[in-house]
Amino acid sequence: MDAEILSIGEELLLGETVDTNSAWIARMLSCAGVKARHFQTVGDELAEIKAAFRLAMSRSGLIVATGGLGPTEDDLTREGLCEACGGIEMEYRPEVLRWMSERVGRPMESLAECNKRQAMVPRGAAMFRNEWGTAPGIYLERDGRHIFLLPGVPREMRGLFEKYALPIVREKFARGGERILVKELHCFGIPESDLNQRICECMRRGANPDVGTRVAQGVCSVRMVARGRTEQEAAEAMAQVESRIREALSEYIFGEDSDTLASVCARILLSKGLTVAIAESCTGGLLCGALTAIPGISRSFLEGAVVYSNDAKILRAGVPAGLIAEKGAVSAEVAAAMAEGIRKGLGADIGIGVTGIAGPTGGTPEKPVGLVYFGCSSRIGTETFHRRFPGERDTIRERSVQTALDMLRRAAMRI
Amino acid sequence: MDAEILSIGEELLLGETVDTNSAWIARMLSCAGVKARHFQTVGDELAEIKAAFRLAMSRSGLIVATGGLGPTEDDLTREGLCEACGGIEMEYRPEVLRWMSERVGRPMESLAECNKRQAMVPRGAAMFRNEWGTAPGIYLERDGRHIFLLPGVPREMRGLFEKYALPIVREKFARGGERILVKELHCFGIPESDLNQRICECMRRGANPDVGTRVAQGVCSVRMVARGRTEQEAAEAMAQVESRIREALSEYIFGEDSDTLASVCARILLSKGLTVAIAESCTGGLLCGALTAIPGISRSFLEGAVVYSNDAKILRAGVPAGLIAEKGAVSAEVAAAMAEGIRKGLGADIGIGVTGIAGPTGGTPEKPVGLVYFGCSSRIGTETFHRRFPGERDTIRERSVQTALDMLRRAAMRI
Repeated sequence: MDAEILSIGEELLLGETVDTNSAWIARMLSCAGVKARHFQTVGDELAEIKAAFRLAMSRSGLIVATGGLGPTEDDLTREGLCEACGGIEMEYRPEVLRWMSERVGRPMESLAECNKRQAMVPRGAAMFRNEWGTAPGIYLERDGRHIFLLPGVPREMRGLFEKYALPIVREKFARGGERILVKELHCFGIPESDLNQRICECMRRGANPDVGTRVAQGVCSVRMVARGRTEQEAAEAMAQVESRIREALSEYIFGEDSDTLASVCARILLSKGLTVAIAESCTGGLLCGALTAIPGISRSFLEGAVVYSNDAKILRAGVPAGLIAEKGAVSAEVAAAMAEGIRKGLGADIGIGVTGIAGPTGGTPEKPVGLVYFGCSSRIGTETFHRRFPGERDTIRERSVQTALDMLRRAAMRI
Repeated sequence: MDAEILSIGEELLLGETVDTNSAWIARMLSCAGVKARHFQTVGDELAEIKAAFRLAMSRSGLIVATGGLGPTEDDLTREGLCEACGGIEMEYRPEVLRWMSERVGRPMESLAECNKRQAMVPRGAAMFRNEWGTAPGIYLERDGRHIFLLPGVPREMRGLFEKYALPIVREKFARGGERILVKELHCFGIPESDLNQRICECMRRGANPDVGTRVAQGVCSVRMVARGRTEQEAAEAMAQVESRIREALSEYIFGEDSDTLASVCARILLSKGLTVAIAESCTGGLLCGALTAIPGISRSFLEGAVVYSNDAKILRAGVPAGLIAEKGAVSAEVAAAMAEGIRKGLGADIGIGVTGIAGPTGGTPEKPVGLVYFGCSSRIGTETFHRRFPGERDTIRERSVQTALDMLRRAAMRI
């Protein structure tokens, strides 16, 4: 049965917000063996929302709508669905206000009048408690169509979808049919075209598992979707191709499924009891920010220094002033000195230094925008390398973070 | 006249690619006074593409479709449009092959057979030369509908849209029609429901300007869409309501349109020639990362210290060891000491200290997960406050960053 995704919100039609929800939901659905065939986006107008639901119900068995569930007058998704279903009534659901009051830590009576709108939902719908915000998820089965209404805030939508909608989708749409297993292998440091060439024999149309690649934030991922009459059959098909792919890409693979470069770094550091200190310039704190996103990292991560100014490089990372004068703040020598200096400060096992030119200004013919030096210091010694990243400031910073994390990962594995 | 945006491509329906084109086009259109009212996304199937064009032509005067113009068999946008128009024929346009051969620097005869598919276009269409890739843009006027076909690669699409489509849109749609002005005011520190209550009289349905609110990352934004027969009329309608809203929300408004808390901080710091140094613990580098996202900030931002461990707080931010022992690392006193210590290091005008418990572990009954202390030091003195943020690690860190930026903004305005 086909799926359809509706995005509702004036901010989408005005182009103020890029809709990332539809792609995320489509990916989750495809992993559950359900194909999304249509996306629609409409604004906060009742007639348009109603028409969009009508169209979706005429052609799709599973409908996931996001947005328009807030407390304000222009949140009309619930009403639009009721009208599209030929006039379902709304009913008051006290548990919604209770969840809300528990969440904000205020008595139900003190909630604003507009919050109470959120407790009015289509009669007969199931409600999903939102642990990430106030708007509950809503699930309605109608004329054989399965309809989910979820908030537009990505974090809330994702939480509700994974916890409540996905299990229902799996049960209703995959039951009795084939079993589907999905696995992703994540690679770093290899261009997508090279990766494709190495594994092209696994990527034939119609093969089982179906193998595809995608790139996001410099990470190249290989997704395998294996099918079988039983879970074991699917697992066997998967295992065979997975081992071929692992062999072809071995040195580039850093993790699988929900792994990120940061989470893999953290896992290695913590399991080996290693400590790390970071001195970063052009990445401006984002490298530390990425690593500290991982819970429990405080046992390994001692400190970071965002040494933006030359004075900070000298004072905090112990870079000799003369070295900056001689080689320039963006140089292999300064990256090495930053890594060594920050490592010594609190006696970390590994020291990381990153210095480069994120742009848009500050580039020269010899040291253009996008040039970034990386240094890594440990008891084995200090090594440096550089990269020249294309793109704009944000991209250069992001790629630098990923590259530094990969360097840290490789260092932590070695020592 | 309303606009509709079609995105065509299997990779969109699989969720492998997030559609950024539609939002970009919608934003460009709204600035030209044309409102997009529908987005549709379909895959590379002829019947679906045809149906999407049919639907769009039944309700929209301007249709912009992206994707499916490549040389391969599954690029079917041209065919889909021809069928939707009741069977327009395709014609061979030699200039397309000539453009292509000039671009790739090879003679026309040597181009692959599949490239020649791209020279077949709907009879009577105008062609736009693509300077950024090979697929030309296509413009067809049919039954009073204006239809643009553009490649899906964002850079190519944007180039062709700005150079060729936008001038046509301005000429055909803006002349004599209503003008639309869009403005957003961004607030921080006020819950959306409170904000709505303060400005609910401006949010009546059908009012001009149309006023709506949205929340993203703790920032509550009020969007005003004003309409008028002339730009002046729209501007007058906007100005009247804007001043009412500004009055109602004055102390919470920090910026408008593309402003962010970080960009506003940077603007104030740079315009006043103030310098800042940051010591952050639970935010782990993200506060520095947010501020350094702004180009040119190196003139104001001296350094950041990600003082995760107690040793780092003592060594890098000059926090007295006894203070941590007595009050705990998460305390108003330590936040103040961090702000003062980091400020003194390089003699910054403003010092910021952030320390808290991002979770998921580390909370206690007195100091629960989500408790964060903020300190701000300047020549005026040092002040602290705390917040208790709900949610998970990521949310707590993100809210802490935004709260610290708002504190920095207010401090920079004062001194």
